[in-house]
Amino acid sequence: MGGDHGPRVTLAACRQFLEHHPQARLLLVGQPESLGGFAHERAQIVPASEVVTMDDPVEVALRRKKDSSMRVAIQQVKDGAAQVAVSAGNTGALMAIARYLLKTLDGIDRPAIATQMPNARGGATTVLDLGANVDCSAEHLLQFAVMGAALVSALHEGTEEPAVGLLNIGEEVIKGNEVIKRTGELLRSAAESGDLNFYGNVEGNDIFKGTVDIVVCDGFVGNVALKASEGVASMIVGALKQEFKRGIFTKIAAVVAYPVLSALMRRMDHRRYNGAALLGLRGLVFKSHGSADILAFEQALIRAYDAARNNLLDRVRSRVAHAAPLLGPAAAQPSP
Amino acid sequence: MGGDHGPRVTLAACRQFLEHHPQARLLLVGQPESLGGFAHERAQIVPASEVVTMDDPVEVALRRKKDSSMRVAIQQVKDGAAQVAVSAGNTGALMAIARYLLKTLDGIDRPAIATQMPNARGGATTVLDLGANVDCSAEHLLQFAVMGAALVSALHEGTEEPAVGLLNIGEEVIKGNEVIKRTGELLRSAAESGDLNFYGNVEGNDIFKGTVDIVVCDGFVGNVALKASEGVASMIVGALKQEFKRGIFTKIAAVVAYPVLSALMRRMDHRRYNGAALLGLRGLVFKSHGSADILAFEQALIRAYDAARNNLLDRVRSRVAHAAPLLGPAAAQPSP
Repeated sequence: MGGDHGPRVTLAACRQFLEHHPQARLLLVGQPESLGGFAHERAQIVPASEVVTMDDPVEVALRRKKDSSMRVAIQQVKDGAAQVAVSAGNTGALMAIARYLLKTLDGIDRPAIATQMPNARGGATTVLDLGANVDCSAEHLLQFAVMGAALVSALHEGTEEPAVGLLNIGEEVIKGNEVIKRTGELLRSAAESGDLNFYGNVEGNDIFKGTVDIVVCDGFVGNVALKASEGVASMIVGALKQEFKRGIFTKIAAVVAYPVLSALMRRMDHRRYNGAALLGLRGLVFKSHGSADILAFEQALIRAYDAARNNLLDRVRSRVAHAAPLLGPAAAQPSP
Repeated sequence: MGGDHGPRVTLAACRQFLEHHPQARLLLVGQPESLGGFAHERAQIVPASEVVTMDDPVEVALRRKKDSSMRVAIQQVKDGAAQVAVSAGNTGALMAIARYLLKTLDGIDRPAIATQMPNARGGATTVLDLGANVDCSAEHLLQFAVMGAALVSALHEGTEEPAVGLLNIGEEVIKGNEVIKRTGELLRSAAESGDLNFYGNVEGNDIFKGTVDIVVCDGFVGNVALKASEGVASMIVGALKQEFKRGIFTKIAAVVAYPVLSALMRRMDHRRYNGAALLGLRGLVFKSHGSADILAFEQALIRAYDAARNNLLDRVRSRVAHAAPLLGPAAAQPSP
């Protein structure tokens, strides 16, 4: 039901996804009157009478709308009817409901949101946290690093030991605030014990250089870095369009340069990187951008499908268990 | 003496600057054998026997090289022989020496570094702190806001009450960590008392949209946002070059599109924004990028000159004094 465009986009993306993935099955969760037109032998409608809106406060989504499509979808994961849930809805509500229904894994204090950003190597850098974890301890950041490594190993074949960088304001170990310095120590210990492939400190530009596979930071810094980057990219694209529209000669230049510019846009297309993972829960949940179009929402479905097929949950669980001695209090006492 | 290119670039920039500014006078501080070739009726050489290198630890720059060009230049400001100092050298050393020699203003706990970034409105957004203030209190961030307002009012005619935004992860007042929420309260109080034109929370992309004149953040977040932005811009420019080089047709397209692309590059040219202000000291100091070329270093000289002509120091002092009741302990007890 979710996202800015609702079932018009999500259902079209589901149809494409099913065509491209002959082994996949979908449960479409939502109001039957909105989803009723969708018929496919590998799809099934699961009714839910309510919808969480983008403006709903978390409390409303969590306590009042108990039959929302979001909640029923995550319940399918909890019940084992689905291996992974995908939503383009309200991120705060999704995280709160997922956390409430699924609970966090042993060894994890807080779930994190991991997204991908394109890099100059032609690949993507995974960055976490982009969730709402605004005050993180060193142990939280270590947990993010371990979960990020599990995610990248599940989604990128041949990357069993992805390189992890700690986002900082310089490469030297003495840089950063106390939490960051302590995190550096923990990550070095994790590298020594074979739990992580720790590269060292990285800086903001390394996200886009592709220096490492995974960049770890708290949710505040991650959010600012992501949005600042989007802002620069929009500004450059906007300025490029303006310059090409300036006069008759530049308009001709635009026509001649069109194939090159569209190749560039394809390469930078953020839709290709849609589908952020909610990590650290006892079940798999992926978040699509609210503004996703058909192509973008299908990408989120593909990413979720690959994560489920490649046992992301088991990978997170076993990596967290292995790193337990370093992970702090949450790892020491298994939750019920 | 400073910067990656040394006097070859800085002296050429000084010559241009003097030609363009018939009222300006320069003191060139450094080793006479390096600067000796420079003769101009409005320039004078002030000898200094040592040079702080980019790799010198702060302690070495501060305690061991007591006759460095950096230190002697700042001493000129302290002695009143110069109204402002400009350096393209080691930022950490420059800040430490400036702080040691000049001291902070009454009401200011920590100096900040303010830089400009281009925005989609064709202007520039001033962002601070980009210095090494990695753990800031709400009072520190308020001090940055007040100093940033003084800077923008001095450098941009007709902007007496520049709009200030607080960098956060959402527009709503409930967003962010405790320090950010408390900073929001202080900034709202400052707006009520007429000390600031506070816009509210802004997000990373607002820096480049040009939503506000000034974006306030701690030095860690500011550094990450700046470097991430540089990373995206480099990636896009790199990809554009690659796409245009791909084949014979795209190379022709590059020739046709060249005037448009160079107009774009001029518009985004970071050299035009060179010259960051060290704010909060009892004297004016500006920092040029170490990699500055002649055009860029001249920009830093111009910015410093404009700041001095427009009484930046008095503006900071009077704004800080006016906001003293809100600024916390440092404002309450005038330093000796």
